[in-house]
Amino acid sequence: MTVPGSPLSMNTIASHLDSLAKPPGSLGQLERLAGELCRIQGTLQPRSTPRRMVLFAGDHGVVAERVTTWPSAITEIMLQTIAAGKAACNALAQSSATPLALFDVGSLEGGQRNENHPLINRSHWIRAGTRNLAVEAALTRDEFRRAVEVGRLIASEAVIEGVEIFAGGEMGIGNTTPAACLTALICGAKTDSVVGRGAGASDEILNRKRQVVDQAVSRVEPLFACDPEEALAAVSGLEIAAIAGFYAEASKRGKVVVLDGFITTAAALIAETLWPGSRKNFIAAHRSVEPGHAIALDHLGLTPFLEWNLRLGEGTGALLLMPLLDAAAMMVTRMATLADLQSLVPRQLDPHQDSHPG
Amino acid sequence: MTVPGSPLSMNTIASHLDSLAKPPGSLGQLERLAGELCRIQGTLQPRSTPRRMVLFAGDHGVVAERVTTWPSAITEIMLQTIAAGKAACNALAQSSATPLALFDVGSLEGGQRNENHPLINRSHWIRAGTRNLAVEAALTRDEFRRAVEVGRLIASEAVIEGVEIFAGGEMGIGNTTPAACLTALICGAKTDSVVGRGAGASDEILNRKRQVVDQAVSRVEPLFACDPEEALAAVSGLEIAAIAGFYAEASKRGKVVVLDGFITTAAALIAETLWPGSRKNFIAAHRSVEPGHAIALDHLGLTPFLEWNLRLGEGTGALLLMPLLDAAAMMVTRMATLADLQSLVPRQLDPHQDSHPG
Repeated sequence: MTVPGSPLSMNTIASHLDSLAKPPGSLGQLERLAGELCRIQGTLQPRSTPRRMVLFAGDHGVVAERVTTWPSAITEIMLQTIAAGKAACNALAQSSATPLALFDVGSLEGGQRNENHPLINRSHWIRAGTRNLAVEAALTRDEFRRAVEVGRLIASEAVIEGVEIFAGGEMGIGNTTPAACLTALICGAKTDSVVGRGAGASDEILNRKRQVVDQAVSRVEPLFACDPEEALAAVSGLEIAAIAGFYAEASKRGKVVVLDGFITTAAALIAETLWPGSRKNFIAAHRSVEPGHAIALDHLGLTPFLEWNLRLGEGTGALLLMPLLDAAAMMVTRMATLADLQSLVPRQLDPHQDSHPG
Repeated sequence: MTVPGSPLSMNTIASHLDSLAKPPGSLGQLERLAGELCRIQGTLQPRSTPRRMVLFAGDHGVVAERVTTWPSAITEIMLQTIAAGKAACNALAQSSATPLALFDVGSLEGGQRNENHPLINRSHWIRAGTRNLAVEAALTRDEFRRAVEVGRLIASEAVIEGVEIFAGGEMGIGNTTPAACLTALICGAKTDSVVGRGAGASDEILNRKRQVVDQAVSRVEPLFACDPEEALAAVSGLEIAAIAGFYAEASKRGKVVVLDGFITTAAALIAETLWPGSRKNFIAAHRSVEPGHAIALDHLGLTPFLEWNLRLGEGTGALLLMPLLDAAAMMVTRMATLADLQSLVPRQLDPHQDSHPG
């Protein structure tokens, strides 16, 4: 009837959803989610599996400015916790039957660790964190490109392995600061409006963070107009750039991309800025507590499905949406149509009482 | 450490959630959901299975007033569709791995059908729909009590079979009208504020429905003050009364009860009115489009987890919450604590950068 992957009009999708055995529109946001799956996959038989959550980790030189409560050492500790299967993302990956992969592309310690940990892939490690974006470019153009290419490569491998649903997550102490810079820069938002408390900043830390973001954005803003890539590199993170590449490649290959929170949406902003059209395959899982997240989602034209006040990262919000994707796909593919009902109960069926013979 | 079923203070629960390896509160609503599971089950090792969705069906004499777009014949057609595994509830039950049971307690045709359908249990069928609540009592006190007892019995059997999570759903053309009457009566709300379009009423139908609800509520209001049970019976439904009994019994036995939409929440209002305290075990899965639903949830002191503009019934909203209950339970039981992190990485760990030796 329809060729998977070919464009399917929104009318065709809406007609199909309305033909199912329920009052039209009565499944609300689940129908919107189902419609998104159909549109992106180009089929009325959408799939929510195989799927994969790929976590990217990196550290941030800007932590020297004391913009966060937690020290950079926590990044490595959380990588070990994830590898031990005991972090929040592991719990939600398990409950949603979503395979998890973990790539360290730029933690402080990643370069010194030569143990072959079976669950932390450091083969694409680039450098020991970014430089301090408050005073200099966090990444050079080349480092940024290298991180993007790592993300693209990992997405390409997943495509070859048959993954249909792509989700990215991040771990990196200090990464709400570059995310705020990227959001302000790309969305043209006031820096105050995109700076939040991250993993729990005090008023004092919050004020410092605002100053740092303001300073960095002011410095790179002129560059952004003439050389967006170089400007974005200057306020980016290694894990953020890798996610941008991962998202862009998955989208280019026609796959569904499920965004997580503020950091990953900043990566999505990079992808859409440098490779316009990437956003057409994005689904926003949730809207986080970070004030910049709503601004970034608006800029991408995305309406989130969950408003759960999350602010953890690690891909947790995207993982929460996974079983709801299952529900959406199942709804489209398993329900009878209103027309089918006639065959289930062989007699005249008219949905309008006024003309019903009883 | 704690005895399952014994009361657990909210402080104990909050401390435990805060001790997990994440910034305190950073999983937002998922933590609230996890806290509810812990509180109701009286344990820090909560479970989201075994669970069961029990659907109750019944018809409504008030359909004679043309308060709905769909004829009563649709009730039986949907029962057959559910039995054939092709309704919305089947899709969501399958995607959330929730066993489904279906009891016809009062459809128009249930009394005449003596086939032993393996998937539609009619052994507790009471009568062929309610009387027209616009002009007379929908149910007598005895009929109402019988329906409540059926619900209690079904809940008791599920308790014996080990079910921990109880969800109810409904199928019954016309049942937003009794639900509106029950909500207005119990919450003391203006009738206009609780009447919505149900499965898709036109303006004309909506106006008739408002008049009918107003008329019925005005008639039974004086009775409600002196004999609530008789008054509720007069504007109830067989499936609604059965759900009220099902919820009340599950709650009394200490089990978690997941509410669905407007109709099932009207049943929850009955349960709380006649057996106060029932609500302590209720979790509100979602807030539906029906305007009376928010009023009913407020009255019960419940904050819903999903705002997905659902208005289908069949337990679909409760089924969507099931995988999120899995996530909540998994979060509490599988995550490392902040204290555990020290053992994962054996060196000094201080979450505050200011005092960190680096």
